[in-house]
Amino acid sequence: MTKTESAKLFTPPDPSWRERCLASFAKQAMMRTLGVEVGSVGPGEVVLAFDRDDRLTQQHGFIHAGVLGTVLDSACGWAALSLMPVDHAVLTVEYKLNLLRPATGERFEGRGRVVKPGRTLTVAEGVLSATGEADRPLATMTATLMAVADRDIED
Amino acid sequence: MTKTESAKLFTPPDPSWRERCLASFAKQAMMRTLGVEVGSVGPGEVVLAFDRDDRLTQQHGFIHAGVLGTVLDSACGWAALSLMPVDHAVLTVEYKLNLLRPATGERFEGRGRVVKPGRTLTVAEGVLSATGEADRPLATMTATLMAVADRDIED
Amino acid sequence: MTKTESAKLFTPPDPSWRERCLASFAKQAMMRTLGVEVGSVGPGEVVLAFDRDDRLTQQHGFIHAGVLGTVLDSACGWAALSLMPVDHAVLTVEYKLNLLRPATGERFEGRGRVVKPGRTLTVAEGVLSATGEADRPLATMTATLMAVADRDIED
Amino acid sequence: MTKTESAKLFTPPDPSWRERCLASFAKQAMMRTLGVEVGSVGPGEVVLAFDRDDRLTQQHGFIHAGVLGTVLDSACGWAALSLMPVDHAVLTVEYKLNLLRPATGERFEGRGRVVKPGRTLTVAEGVLSATGEADRPLATMTATLMAVADRDIED
Repeated sequence: MTKTESAKLFTPPDPSWRERCLASFAKQAMMRTLGVEVGSVGPGEVVLAFDRDDRLTQQHGFIHAGVLGTVLDSACGWAALSLMPVDHAVLTVEYKLNLLRPATGERFEGRGRVVKPGRTLTVAEGVLSATGEADRPLATMTATLMAVADRDIED
Repeated sequence: MTKTESAKLFTPPDPSWRERCLASFAKQAMMRTLGVEVGSVGPGEVVLAFDRDDRLTQQHGFIHAGVLGTVLDSACGWAALSLMPVDHAVLTVEYKLNLLRPATGERFEGRGRVVKPGRTLTVAEGVLSATGEADRPLATMTATLMAVADRDIED
Repeated sequence: MTKTESAKLFTPPDPSWRERCLASFAKQAMMRTLGVEVGSVGPGEVVLAFDRDDRLTQQHGFIHAGVLGTVLDSACGWAALSLMPVDHAVLTVEYKLNLLRPATGERFEGRGRVVKPGRTLTVAEGVLSATGEADRPLATMTATLMAVADRDIED
Repeated sequence: MTKTESAKLFTPPDPSWRERCLASFAKQAMMRTLGVEVGSVGPGEVVLAFDRDDRLTQQHGFIHAGVLGTVLDSACGWAALSLMPVDHAVLTVEYKLNLLRPATGERFEGRGRVVKPGRTLTVAEGVLSATGEADRPLATMTATLMAVADRDIED
């Protein structure tokens, strides 16, 4: 359930929305660098998962806040992409991350959900928690993403 | 110059502030994972630098927003740490990142500066740009950090 | 329902939590200036309501974003206050407001909910919508609030 | 000086930029409700000023955070408007406000400056302080604003 208190059912305008999200994920090197996997891809909602790894820690041994931000930004981005028309990509405009608890655990899930789709701007929310502890979020995000025609992005 | 329109001269309460920041950096595995180096460490101001690396990119070949967030969060964190009393660490409470332009370039610098130090909370700002293009920022951050007594952090 | 996907049941440590919130509301002049009324006060959740008024508009006749921010900040603040121990107040550390749609309507409700209570910091979320249109939010907020002992606030 | 460390000289595309900003201010009822006056209007930079008034306070007698947010949002909005092409308005997409100190004082100035103008999105920063205490900011803001063709806004 999102802040809106009701399940949102979005209808992606591109029938190949799922393939497009998965292809985009496959192209994002940073996900491999962090060891992130796709958990699920739905219309306006994407879950990513990753294991604890010493390489991702800050000086106290917690997962670095920036890793949580990277995973949630990506989950929010693909959640937005799933609702884009054909031949459009999304770029992140801005995001805000709140760290609610030190990020301890062995495996983590980051969920991104579209709160408000739009022709130009999409607002999404993200929640990250240790797997199996969805009621004890470690971090939350609000992200704004902009639709960009594929032809306007240098690839 | 920060939002405050005047150079701030902060006096770190811990005479070993510089060593402490460098020791903390040396302990943060995530910096090595991203290939980040220390550019400079001053009282309330830290610069980090890193090279473009395909491993850090998103699906269009730009540096991932999450990498910019990680570097600026770390720069803001050590800027705050430089002003902490002995036996205190800092944890990030929240941050907001604005992406101003697609992150293209060969080398990047992220600068974190304390805007308002405090006994409990410190507010810092970050700016990231390609090296040599400080007047063309790629991303800006505002971060809130909390002082925590070392004994209160499980290590 | 909050981002955490489960109803949170909070137990206020101060048995007079409701009276304290209402007394604090009665002391806040800005609520009267905007014509805001209390809708409901629960443990960790506060609803405020107000009518459209030309005095509160921006240049296009929409309710000013700053009014939405003021109401949600207050709702989040009292939601946090409801969970504070005796003799503690809360001050807003920071908040982020997303404007999802132009604020049109005749009456509005702003709801603040605690996502993560804490001894020092509390994180709350706010949603504002026209009355009867809870599934079509006009604005959302994430706010961080700090507990402060009453004796530490000049009154 | 902004985060970019260099003075920015913006050239407004609309030669009537100043008149347009002042006309927009004159149409914004909320500014009168709060007693806000224009301090200065420059290309990409606007200063607003207001006096302390009991009507604008929260429960401890400080100026309400929402008032600071309203004034800075407006200052950032007109700073963005000053750089818009003819026949375009701006709407706030989102903003983040940090409260650095309790807002005490007799008169206040809120300054909004464009950090990154854009065809679709503009990023601006705001700083609010008591008059004469520019080096002791009470609140800072980062705001994202969207250009909207006049014909697309119902007036």
